[in-house]
Amino acid sequence: MLKGNQVVSIVGATGLVGSEIAKLLVLRGFPMSRLVLFASGRHQECEVRLAGRSLPVHPFTLDAMRGTGICFLAAGGEFSRRHAEAIASLGVTVIDNSSAFRMDSRVPLVVPEVNPGALGEHSGIIANPNCSTIQMVVALAPLHREWRLRRAIVSTYQAVTGAGLMAAGELARQSDAVLRGKPARAEVFPHPIAFNVLPHIDVFDSQGWTREERKMRDETKKIMGDPSMEVIATAVRVPVFRGHSESVHARFTKSVSLERARDLLSRAPGVELVDDPENNRYPMPVDCAGRDLTLVGRLRKDPATDRALCMWIVSDNLRKGAALNAVQIAERLL
Amino acid sequence: MLKGNQVVSIVGATGLVGSEIAKLLVLRGFPMSRLVLFASGRHQECEVRLAGRSLPVHPFTLDAMRGTGICFLAAGGEFSRRHAEAIASLGVTVIDNSSAFRMDSRVPLVVPEVNPGALGEHSGIIANPNCSTIQMVVALAPLHREWRLRRAIVSTYQAVTGAGLMAAGELARQSDAVLRGKPARAEVFPHPIAFNVLPHIDVFDSQGWTREERKMRDETKKIMGDPSMEVIATAVRVPVFRGHSESVHARFTKSVSLERARDLLSRAPGVELVDDPENNRYPMPVDCAGRDLTLVGRLRKDPATDRALCMWIVSDNLRKGAALNAVQIAERLL
Repeated sequence: MLKGNQVVSIVGATGLVGSEIAKLLVLRGFPMSRLVLFASGRHQECEVRLAGRSLPVHPFTLDAMRGTGICFLAAGGEFSRRHAEAIASLGVTVIDNSSAFRMDSRVPLVVPEVNPGALGEHSGIIANPNCSTIQMVVALAPLHREWRLRRAIVSTYQAVTGAGLMAAGELARQSDAVLRGKPARAEVFPHPIAFNVLPHIDVFDSQGWTREERKMRDETKKIMGDPSMEVIATAVRVPVFRGHSESVHARFTKSVSLERARDLLSRAPGVELVDDPENNRYPMPVDCAGRDLTLVGRLRKDPATDRALCMWIVSDNLRKGAALNAVQIAERLL
Repeated sequence: MLKGNQVVSIVGATGLVGSEIAKLLVLRGFPMSRLVLFASGRHQECEVRLAGRSLPVHPFTLDAMRGTGICFLAAGGEFSRRHAEAIASLGVTVIDNSSAFRMDSRVPLVVPEVNPGALGEHSGIIANPNCSTIQMVVALAPLHREWRLRRAIVSTYQAVTGAGLMAAGELARQSDAVLRGKPARAEVFPHPIAFNVLPHIDVFDSQGWTREERKMRDETKKIMGDPSMEVIATAVRVPVFRGHSESVHARFTKSVSLERARDLLSRAPGVELVDDPENNRYPMPVDCAGRDLTLVGRLRKDPATDRALCMWIVSDNLRKGAALNAVQIAERLL
C-alpha cells in the first residue's frame, strides 16, 4: 500500500513530539513527495521552521487527510480516539503516538528492534508505545531472547518533556523562582517539580497504580508477546528536561551471566552499552538528549540468585521514546 | 555513665549535619551543661549563630575533649577513623555519623525506632547509620516484625545535601547557569547534577556496586539483626536540595495485606503515612525538609504474589537521615 513517494502528514506538529517527528523525517531522508503539518486544535494558521525553511501549519480537517500516505498523530489520546479510525478509513496509514489504541488487539504496538513482525497484521492504525516502555523493552529484549524474562521491577526517573512543552516551561520558571528565594507556582503538575520529585505520572487507579505504571506493565507484555511476564513499575517525575532514566531489576527463567549480558547488549540494535563505572561512565540524561540510542549501564548481578540482573537504562524520551520510534515504524512499513 | 547535665561537643559543627545536630539539641531541650563546637580541620576560630546567640567554633584537639559526656562526630570517615577511639578512651561517649565503625561488630549501629536494644552493648562508640538506610529501615521495620522481610529491591532518589554544603552550592550554581544557557561546570560531582540524574553515589567496587549501595545492604542486615535478608539497591543522585526518596519493592516470608500494612505504618514510631493518591497526596522531598518523620506512601500490592508490596519512602536526609537520629541515640542513652 505504501510507496516510496507519498504525502506524509503530522497532526500535532507544533508540539514537542510532532516537531521532533518532522525534524527526524527530514534528517533521515524519509522518502516523501510532500510533508504537510497540522495543528490539532482550531489554532490560527501558523508556521514552523524546519531545515532552514518555513512550513505552514494548517488547522486539522479530515478532508485534508485525503491523499496522505502516512499520517503521524501526536495530538494526544482524546484527539486520536476521535479521529484515528476516520483517517485510517480514507486509506491513510496512521501511526498513533497516543495511548488510545495501544491495547486494542487489532492494533499492532511496535518497537522495530523488538517486534517488527507485528507490523504485518495492521489494518490502518499502528500504535507507538509509551516512552518509558520503549526504552525498557529495547534493553530487555536481547536478554529476554536469551534467558526469558520472568519479571521486571522498575523505578523510573522521567523528564518533564514527557508531559509536553508547558511542563518544560514550568520546570524552568519554578527553578528560577526557587533560586531567587521565591515560591514555585505549580500549574502543569499538581505540585512543584523544581528541586523535587513526584511519584505521580498520569492518573491513579483504585489500587494505587498510576496509568503510566499500568502502561509499562501491559504494553511490555504485548510488545514482548508474553502475557506471563510481570512488570512492576513505580513511575516518578524528576526535575530533568529531557531523557528518561530507569532502574531495573530483571529476573529471568534461566541463569544469567554479566559477561554474556554485556555481549548481548553491545550487539543489540538500538542499544549502546555505557558501563565503565571505574571511569565514571554510565548512562545519564544529559548524554542522551538528541541521540537515537538507548544507553544501558550499571549492570550488576543479583547477589542472591543466578537468575537476576540490575541495570540502568536511559534514553531521550522525545526521540526513541516517541518521535524516532514512530519514524522507524514508518521506515519499516516501506 | 551519662548524666543529665554534661558537656556535649560536636566535631564538624560548621558542616550541614553538625550544625543540624546543634540546632536539634537546642530545639529538643537536650539536657546539657554546655555545648562546645569544634571544626575538624585547622580552620581559624570562627563563630556560628545558634538560637539567636553566637557560639565560638574551636579547632579540634583531643585534649579539648576531656570532660565531655557525649561527643557527636560529623567530620567524615577519615576523621572518625583517626580520632574516635582516642576520644572514647577518655571516657567520652562518641556518636559517630560517619561510616568508619558502622560494620564493626563491637560497635552498635542504631536506629532508635528499630533496634534500641543494641545500645546496651556499646563500649564508647555508637555508629549512626547511612541516611538512605535509616529512612528505609524505619519504614520496613514495622512490616518486618509482622511478616519478616526476605528481600528489598530499592532505587533511591537522593538529595545533593547528602554530599555536603558544597554540593548544594554546586546544584544552585549549575541550575542558574543552565537556565541562562551557559554550561554547568562540575566540581563536587563527577558530572553536572543540574537537570540531570547520576546513578553514582560514593565509589564503585569491582562488581559494579557503589559503596552507598553496599551500605544500604550491609547496614540494613545489621540494624534489622537478620543476615539472611537481602537488600538490592541502586543509589541515584537527583537535583533536589534536601530530602531523599526511595522506591522499594519489599518481599516478605508471609502473605501481606495493604490494609494491615497501612494500619502498622500509621501506628509506627517515626513514620507518617501519606497515602491518599486520589487527592494527590504522597510523600515528596519538598514536604519533608525540616521535618522529623519518615513519610511513607504509594503503597501497592505486588500483582503477582501475595507476599510483596511496593512503597515510596521520603525523609529529610539531614534530619532523620543524620542529625535527628544521632540526637535520638543520645536521648536514649540518658
